[in-house]
Amino acid sequence: MAEDTRERILSACERVIARSGLRGFRMQEVAREAGVSIGLLAYHFGDRDGLLEAALDHVNESAAIRAETPGEQPAPARLIALLTSEFGDDAGIRDGSVAWNELRASAVFDAGQARAVARSTADWQQRVVELVRESLGPQGADPEPIALLLTALVEGLSGRWLTGQITAAQAQDAMRDAAARVGIRAS
Amino acid sequence: MAEDTRERILSACERVIARSGLRGFRMQEVAREAGVSIGLLAYHFGDRDGLLEAALDHVNESAAIRAETPGEQPAPARLIALLTSEFGDDAGIRDGSVAWNELRASAVFDAGQARAVARSTADWQQRVVELVRESLGPQGADPEPIALLLTALVEGLSGRWLTGQITAAQAQDAMRDAAARVGIRAS
Repeated sequence: MAEDTRERILSACERVIARSGLRGFRMQEVAREAGVSIGLLAYHFGDRDGLLEAALDHVNESAAIRAETPGEQPAPARLIALLTSEFGDDAGIRDGSVAWNELRASAVFDAGQARAVARSTADWQQRVVELVRESLGPQGADPEPIALLLTALVEGLSGRWLTGQITAAQAQDAMRDAAARVGIRAS
Repeated sequence: MAEDTRERILSACERVIARSGLRGFRMQEVAREAGVSIGLLAYHFGDRDGLLEAALDHVNESAAIRAETPGEQPAPARLIALLTSEFGDDAGIRDGSVAWNELRASAVFDAGQARAVARSTADWQQRVVELVRESLGPQGADPEPIALLLTALVEGLSGRWLTGQITAAQAQDAMRDAAARVGIRAS
């Protein structure tokens, strides 16, 4: 499948979830939203669970792509860009965040989905572990608990943001504040 | 309504949500689970939204009650007890956490529920603000961003815990670690 078709389908999947949640989620609606056949969707992603797992990874990948900056930035700036790229007023960012929240919430009741969420979360957290290690240097603190703190905080703040308790900018400020408290500053 | 009836209904409500989520949630099932009439339920909590809002407050109150210790402890110990009391292997703690997670997830799609979640979250966060202020003293750092960080982290870690990515004990350790990083230690 061409990369742009894959991208189109996964963005469509996030929009469908963001519109009405996982309740009554149907692959047919994703196919319609993406303008592809249900056969193509099934051929490439398999079943509903395969599509939803790919959507989780897509949310992570999209945040990583948004965080990319021209030229090579120092590790602390890259880490903060990655963490703050999870929030924003752009519809695509919000759709991805809602989809992630929905999938995690439903994973509490679905062991298969819980495995997918755990795997995708671990990938994301590992990326953060490496950036924390690079930011703090070889003599720095253990990056694992710091990465857990920062990634779990992104998830907690996203719930506040998506329910209108804080703005995207406030969530980003809170992430910069948390990073500074563990000794990571962009400049 | 006697306090124990209210307590019984709200615990039953959390069990019902923890069993099968908010999807298909019905007051009738809560009445049956609590062993009361649907009329009594409706009389005291009003409609579905009234019951769910009371359940949110009940989750917070239950955590505060669990955190109470005999004798007067210093503020840092009380704060850490409150934050870590959100996690535990006891069925009641897990039920309350699942209910909170479900209500927050569905609040993304429901403005009325979002208001209830925002109000209940603000009450809880204010309690944390006061304990942070007392812990850090009058010359200490601004307690507001610290309380946002700590409470949002509880919510993020609860998602990890409820999907089996970390244990309740690991979530509690992560909260103690986060509190220590903002200068709050139990002893």
